[in-house]
Amino acid sequence: MNRILYRNSEPVEGLLTLRDARADHIPTVLRAHPGDTLKLGQLNGPLAVGRIETLDPQSVTLRLTEGQTPSRPDVDLLLALPRPKVLRRLLPQIAALGVHRLFLTNAARVERPYFDTHVLDPEPLEIALIEGLTQAGDTLLPEVRVIRQLKIFLEDELDTATDAVRRLVLHPGCGTPLHRLPSTSCRTLLAIGPEGGWIPHELDRFAALDFHPVTLGSRILRSDTATLAALAIASAD
Amino acid sequence: MNRILYRNSEPVEGLLTLRDARADHIPTVLRAHPGDTLKLGQLNGPLAVGRIETLDPQSVTLRLTEGQTPSRPDVDLLLALPRPKVLRRLLPQIAALGVHRLFLTNAARVERPYFDTHVLDPEPLEIALIEGLTQAGDTLLPEVRVIRQLKIFLEDELDTATDAVRRLVLHPGCGTPLHRLPSTSCRTLLAIGPEGGWIPHELDRFAALDFHPVTLGSRILRSDTATLAALAIASAD
Repeated sequence: MNRILYRNSEPVEGLLTLRDARADHIPTVLRAHPGDTLKLGQLNGPLAVGRIETLDPQSVTLRLTEGQTPSRPDVDLLLALPRPKVLRRLLPQIAALGVHRLFLTNAARVERPYFDTHVLDPEPLEIALIEGLTQAGDTLLPEVRVIRQLKIFLEDELDTATDAVRRLVLHPGCGTPLHRLPSTSCRTLLAIGPEGGWIPHELDRFAALDFHPVTLGSRILRSDTATLAALAIASAD
Repeated sequence: MNRILYRNSEPVEGLLTLRDARADHIPTVLRAHPGDTLKLGQLNGPLAVGRIETLDPQSVTLRLTEGQTPSRPDVDLLLALPRPKVLRRLLPQIAALGVHRLFLTNAARVERPYFDTHVLDPEPLEIALIEGLTQAGDTLLPEVRVIRQLKIFLEDELDTATDAVRRLVLHPGCGTPLHRLPSTSCRTLLAIGPEGGWIPHELDRFAALDFHPVTLGSRILRSDTATLAALAIASAD
């Protein structure tokens, strides 16, 4: 944990008392002592620092000084739902790289049973995302939405679901190399397909909605590798 | 498998007969039939196409037409050895993104027992790398070398171990943002530290050897996420 996160409801008069895994982490991993100052943050709120007031085997109490709320990442990600095992591994990495909105979508090559995974339940989903935020030092949870019908989402909901100005669709070997796009301060929506890619009909639909085709080159990457690579490049602007 | 790889010793008079998992893959995953043409490649050799001559439950025979050998990736990677589970997952992804040489090194924050993993044995290492090559459609195995003493490697062996002209060392939050480096056709050596990063003494040593410090920004990424993100950006030139 490079930043310990707490909920808005937890501090009492500027004092935060931890009794869970976060409390264990402070003496064992961070090797911190009373008087030390740690990096904290309110989930979906400001960054903070916390000075350790008391530390005993059951609990740690910190005095908080809150600062600024981090700015939102510039990228929204529309990701074809990966299989559950990959999803669980990918969620913290996506949160660590930073996205504002995460749309997990159906697509022709996404298998329907993937939607039944408990990884999409609110609690495990949040745990996986918080894991990424505490790693990256951010406080802002990606806003996750599960899309069961990509066609309807694209046709009826896209314009209200995201304020991204630049729309990109990633597909192996077709379009502009992602890193060659001109640098921009615009918010970006990046659409990444499933293993096997988008089908031509889906690509046509993206094209009709002004998604610009982009590629990571001639190498065909596993969709999780491609997701992290593309997100890293798209976020780097 | 986006490209089925075979060894130099396998074809006989232009015919390749497969009897292992590669043979199973052809009818079951690729759903190919006699007369179909598949993408193949000789490990560490040319790309090829293969026309299916015969296909039965025990074997598949293809007539090969070999083409050009792919060009070498432009990046050499000096990577602090991750823990075995992460290493096993990372190796195919590194091979898929493409590196020429992979130096897996000790560092102050690398735990010694990591070097005892069977993942570093020649056979599992090659299996993991081939997994990435068949995914990406490449034939060229990264040349892997295990470095047990980073200091000695850097001082005595670096100049002969790599012909990379541009040397970069990745560290959170210090240096030039990696994606802001001027585009180059030079070969690059990219050094990526362990969880917790390089220690100051190591950074000094890199600096003395003209490694330019680069960063992925203010977010602190897990070393495997950082490796894929940085490799994707460094390879994109």
